[in-house]
Amino acid sequence: MANEFLKGNAVVGQSGGPTAAINATLAGVIRGFFKYGQGHTIYGMRNGMEGFLEERLVNLNERFAKESDIELLEHTPAAALGSCRKKLPAVEGNEDYYEKVFELFRKYDIRYFFYIGGNDSMDTVAKLSAYSKKNDYEMRFVGVPKTIDNDLMGTDHTPGFGSAAKYVAVTMSEIIRDCAVYTKPAVTIVEIMGRDAGWLTASAAIGRVVNGVEPDLLYLPERNFSMEEFLEDVKAKLEEKPNVVVAVSEGIHFADGRYVGEGQQSGVADVFGHKYLAGTGKMLENTVKEQLGCKVRSVELNISQRCAAHLLSKVDIEESVRVGKAAAKAATEGASRIMMTTDRISTEPYVSEVGMADVQDIANQIKHVYDEFINERGNHVTDECCRYLLPLIMGEIQPKYEGGLPVHIII
Amino acid sequence: MANEFLKGNAVVGQSGGPTAAINATLAGVIRGFFKYGQGHTIYGMRNGMEGFLEERLVNLNERFAKESDIELLEHTPAAALGSCRKKLPAVEGNEDYYEKVFELFRKYDIRYFFYIGGNDSMDTVAKLSAYSKKNDYEMRFVGVPKTIDNDLMGTDHTPGFGSAAKYVAVTMSEIIRDCAVYTKPAVTIVEIMGRDAGWLTASAAIGRVVNGVEPDLLYLPERNFSMEEFLEDVKAKLEEKPNVVVAVSEGIHFADGRYVGEGQQSGVADVFGHKYLAGTGKMLENTVKEQLGCKVRSVELNISQRCAAHLLSKVDIEESVRVGKAAAKAATEGASRIMMTTDRISTEPYVSEVGMADVQDIANQIKHVYDEFINERGNHVTDECCRYLLPLIMGEIQPKYEGGLPVHIII
Repeated sequence: MANEFLKGNAVVGQSGGPTAAINATLAGVIRGFFKYGQGHTIYGMRNGMEGFLEERLVNLNERFAKESDIELLEHTPAAALGSCRKKLPAVEGNEDYYEKVFELFRKYDIRYFFYIGGNDSMDTVAKLSAYSKKNDYEMRFVGVPKTIDNDLMGTDHTPGFGSAAKYVAVTMSEIIRDCAVYTKPAVTIVEIMGRDAGWLTASAAIGRVVNGVEPDLLYLPERNFSMEEFLEDVKAKLEEKPNVVVAVSEGIHFADGRYVGEGQQSGVADVFGHKYLAGTGKMLENTVKEQLGCKVRSVELNISQRCAAHLLSKVDIEESVRVGKAAAKAATEGASRIMMTTDRISTEPYVSEVGMADVQDIANQIKHVYDEFINERGNHVTDECCRYLLPLIMGEIQPKYEGGLPVHIII
Repeated sequence: MANEFLKGNAVVGQSGGPTAAINATLAGVIRGFFKYGQGHTIYGMRNGMEGFLEERLVNLNERFAKESDIELLEHTPAAALGSCRKKLPAVEGNEDYYEKVFELFRKYDIRYFFYIGGNDSMDTVAKLSAYSKKNDYEMRFVGVPKTIDNDLMGTDHTPGFGSAAKYVAVTMSEIIRDCAVYTKPAVTIVEIMGRDAGWLTASAAIGRVVNGVEPDLLYLPERNFSMEEFLEDVKAKLEEKPNVVVAVSEGIHFADGRYVGEGQQSGVADVFGHKYLAGTGKMLENTVKEQLGCKVRSVELNISQRCAAHLLSKVDIEESVRVGKAAAKAATEGASRIMMTTDRISTEPYVSEVGMADVQDIANQIKHVYDEFINERGNHVTDECCRYLLPLIMGEIQPKYEGGLPVHIII
C-alpha cells in the first residue's frame, strides 16, 4: 500500500538563497513527475511557502510543455519560481496554521510535496511531515537539497555547490594571473561566501592538484582566527614572493567568537562624515595596510558566486537534475519525510549515486569542513581536501546565448 | 626607403592594467612579426619598460615555436609578459635616460618597438618616437591599444573593452535574476569600473536591445551626480517594483568635482596622480539605507571585469588579435609614431577594420561616453548607446579547460 502511487497532484517550491543549479533540480523534479506522475499535474508555488499560502501557483505541465524550455531552465540562474526566507512555526500550538496549509493541499488535490532548499527548507519538510501524521489526508513530503555552502548533513555534497566552487576556483586562478603582472609587493585578499562552513573558500585551492595555481594562504571559519598569526603568515609569504593572494571565508572569527568583519569600522568616513562597517576582507585589508605598510586590496566575490550560470560545473548540473528526478520517482514509489542525498561511491574515478536520508536527521545541523582537510597551522587546506573537491567542478557547460547574452527562462 | 623593411629585431611590451584580451593582442603581434619580420627575432620585455631597462627579455621566437602555445596565449588573462605602471620622463632634459634606452635597442639590434597599453603607454610611444628623431638610429614605434575603460581617442573602441563589457552585461543579467527571487523591497547597487569614462557601466544596459533585461537606473561619470535626484529616482522605482537594481560607475562625482566614493578610501593617489576609488557603491548603500530605510546591498564587480578570460567576447578577441597582427605589418612596411585603431564601418551589420592614428593625438586625452548616449535625466543610457555597444560583446569563446579549470600559459 505504502509503495503504491498515490493518485493526485504535486507541488514544488524553492526556498532560501538562489544558486546557479537550483533550477536544474527544479527541471529534474518536473521531468521526474512528468515521467512518474501518471498524467497528474505538478504545480509550482511562487516564492515558496509564502506564495503557496496565497495560492500563487503555476501549472508546470502547461508551462513546460516544450522540452526546450526545460533545457533552458537547467541553465537559468536563481530560483525561477521565486524564493522566500520563511521558517514554519512549531507544529505544537500552531495547528491552525498547518490546517490552513492542508486545506490548500486538499483543494488542489496535492499528494506530493517537493521543496528545494537548504537547512530551513528541510525543517519545513520535517514539520509538514510531522503534522501530516496527525492527519487523515495521506501525502508524501520530499526535500531536495541545494546550497552553495555545502553545509547540509547526510549528503556527500549539495547541488549548487559544485558550480559555485567552480566559479570560485576559476575566478581565483584569473585573479592570481592578474596579481602576477606587477613586481611591487602587494597583498590581495579575496573574501568568499560561507558564514559557518568553509567549503566554498576551500575550493579556491583546488588548482593545487590541477596546475599548481592556488592562493598562498587560506582561512576557514572552522578554525579560530588569530590576527597575529595572520600577519606573520603574510609577512613570511611576502619574503618569498612579491604578490601574495589570500582567500578568506566571510565567516572567520576570533577565538572569542566575534566575527572578524563584525562591528569593525573601516576608520574612514564618506563625504558626509558617515563611518561605515567594513566586511571581513576590508577589515583585513586595512589591518595589513596599517601593520605591514604594503600595497593591499580586497576583493569580495559577492553574489556572482551563487548566480554565475555562465560558468557551471557539468557534474553539478547533471547531479542536480538527477537528484530532482529521483525525488519524483522516490515519492511516487512511496518515500516520504526524506531528503534526497548524493552519495559518493569513489573519488578516483569519481562515482556518485542518489540516496535518501531521514529529513529529521538533517534539519538544523551544519556540516563543517572535515578536520583532516585543514592544515596544522590553520592557514590552508590539505591535498586530500583538494582531491576530494576536484570532481565536483569537473566539466563545462556552454549555456545558450542570443545576442551575446545568455538566454534565461522566466516562469 | 621609408616603406622598406628595416633589417633588425623587434621588442614588444605590455603596460598598464591587465585585461582579458591584452594577450590576444600580444599573440597578434607575435604572429604578425613571425610573418612579416623576415626571420628576425621578436623579444618580449618583462614588466614593460621597467623590465626592458633591466634587460629582462625573452626570445618569443623560441617561446612560441608551437602554434598551440600562441592559441593558449589568446585566451590567457592578464599581461603574460608582466606589466608596469611607469610614465617616461619628459624628453627635454632627460636625454641621458633616453640614450640608455636606445643603447639597449642598439645592443639587441632592435628596430621595431611595439607597446600594448592604454593612455600612458601611448605617451611612452610618443616620447620614444620624439627622441628617436634626434637620433641617427632608425627605428619604428607602434602603440597597440588596450583598455577595458574604452577611453582612448582616435579609435572606435579599444581591444579588451568588448570582453569586459560582455562580463559586465552577462553578470548584470545574472544579478538581476538573483535579485528577482524575493518579494520584499530591496535595492541592489552594482559598482562598475571606469574612473573617468562610463563606457563599461553603460554596457550593463546592453540587455535592453537583446532581451529587455537591464538595470533600472544607471549613473555615469559624464554627468554630475546629485544625491537628491538619485534618492528620488530610487524611490520612484521602488513604487513600480520590489527589486531595484542600480548600475553606477566607480567614478561618479558631485557637481563640485568630489568623487561620491571619496573618503571611502585612503585618498592615496597612484603614481600618475590618479585617485584610487573603492567605495562608491558602499557609500550609496549606506545613504539609501539611511534615507529610504529599505533592504539594500552593494556589489563591486571588481577585478574580474578585467581578467575574466572564462567569459570572452569573440568579436573582441578576434579584433584584438587582428590589431596586433596589423601593427607588425604596418611597422615592417614603414609606419611609425602611430597607434593602431579599430574603425567602425557600420553597426548593423557590424563591420570594422584596422586603421592608424598619429600617437601624438592620442596620448593624455580621454574619450567620454557621447552626449547623445545619455538620457536627459542623466540616470540611464539611450537605446542608441545599447545598439552601438551590442556588436562588441557578440560571440562566445570556450577556452581550453583541463581538470575543470581553464588552461593559462605562463611565459
